[in-house]
Amino acid sequence: MLTPSIERLVTELARLPGIGPRSAQRLAFHMMKAPKERSRGLAEALVEMADRLRPCAVCFSFAEAELCPICADPRRDPSLLCAVEEPSAILPIERTHEYRGRYHVLGGALSPIDGVDPGDLRIAELVARIEADDVVELVIATNPTMSGEATALHLADLVRGRVRVTRLASGLPVGADLEHADELTLGRALLGRREL
Amino acid sequence: MLTPSIERLVTELARLPGIGPRSAQRLAFHMMKAPKERSRGLAEALVEMADRLRPCAVCFSFAEAELCPICADPRRDPSLLCAVEEPSAILPIERTHEYRGRYHVLGGALSPIDGVDPGDLRIAELVARIEADDVVELVIATNPTMSGEATALHLADLVRGRVRVTRLASGLPVGADLEHADELTLGRALLGRREL
Repeated sequence: MLTPSIERLVTELARLPGIGPRSAQRLAFHMMKAPKERSRGLAEALVEMADRLRPCAVCFSFAEAELCPICADPRRDPSLLCAVEEPSAILPIERTHEYRGRYHVLGGALSPIDGVDPGDLRIAELVARIEADDVVELVIATNPTMSGEATALHLADLVRGRVRVTRLASGLPVGADLEHADELTLGRALLGRREL
Repeated sequence: MLTPSIERLVTELARLPGIGPRSAQRLAFHMMKAPKERSRGLAEALVEMADRLRPCAVCFSFAEAELCPICADPRRDPSLLCAVEEPSAILPIERTHEYRGRYHVLGGALSPIDGVDPGDLRIAELVARIEADDVVELVIATNPTMSGEATALHLADLVRGRVRVTRLASGLPVGADLEHADELTLGRALLGRREL
């Protein structure tokens, strides 16, 4: 009994993570009852985001210009670099207000089983930045998982001797995802980072 | 550190019911990582829905043509009519497969405190349909809440004598919303409907 346009919206909404068919239906009914400007507003935001976002030329996080807001900010310390797996890990670190350096998005973590080798990550770009920017410390903030740890060890072996290499302190539960960590735990982990 | 287009998308997503700022951020990051066609697909679905949906000329549910899919279906029994508060109540009733009549969307429920009087609901249209379509039974499926019950009693008083008036059987927990009822409970309530 749903009209084709409602069916389509429910299908698209149900593709979002954590949104099942029932939630998608509930969201669709909400949008149908709300003023049409609300649907158009969300639609425009989606298109605008898809049109404007591109990788930052320096750190590979999301940008709308050549540089992302952090790489474009002259107040950020270029001698302190933090390597993360994905851009989504940057926001929780920023929320701790404990870090004033820059970031480098690796684009994943090493996982030979899934066919992710060092050549698939932006490691060469990281090494080039360390040399070009006179980086003093590399904070490795990959996830506290098997592949995150393997990536951390690989990076540490690669640049040890050239820069101080640190890792977020344990305190994050193993197997967790950095994206969902609370500020307090993550702030402590950042303050207690240790040499690798 | 979020770019303006990401901030905008997070704001729009956080306006959806049941989606807080963290969930909105998680959804936005998901859309950012997914192929851009996914964002455009959802955006198109939203715009299409906002552009195409209009009230059914007969039952006031959502339609894309003059009539909604149910009013346009000649197999639906026109002598059996079910009054609901909102279009979102139709889908759960359809899922029970216990009902083969038509619907009438009142557009809410009586609530003097909130200033909703009989004149604010599509009651005159309901009475006109009952007469025009030779309706034999009116199933009142307003929510089992104070205002839903008040609406049911008001409707029953209005058309009693002209048609058989029934109400969904109790079995639905009082205070609940029809939209979230499970098929089994709602199917039983429909089968056990009683005279008012």
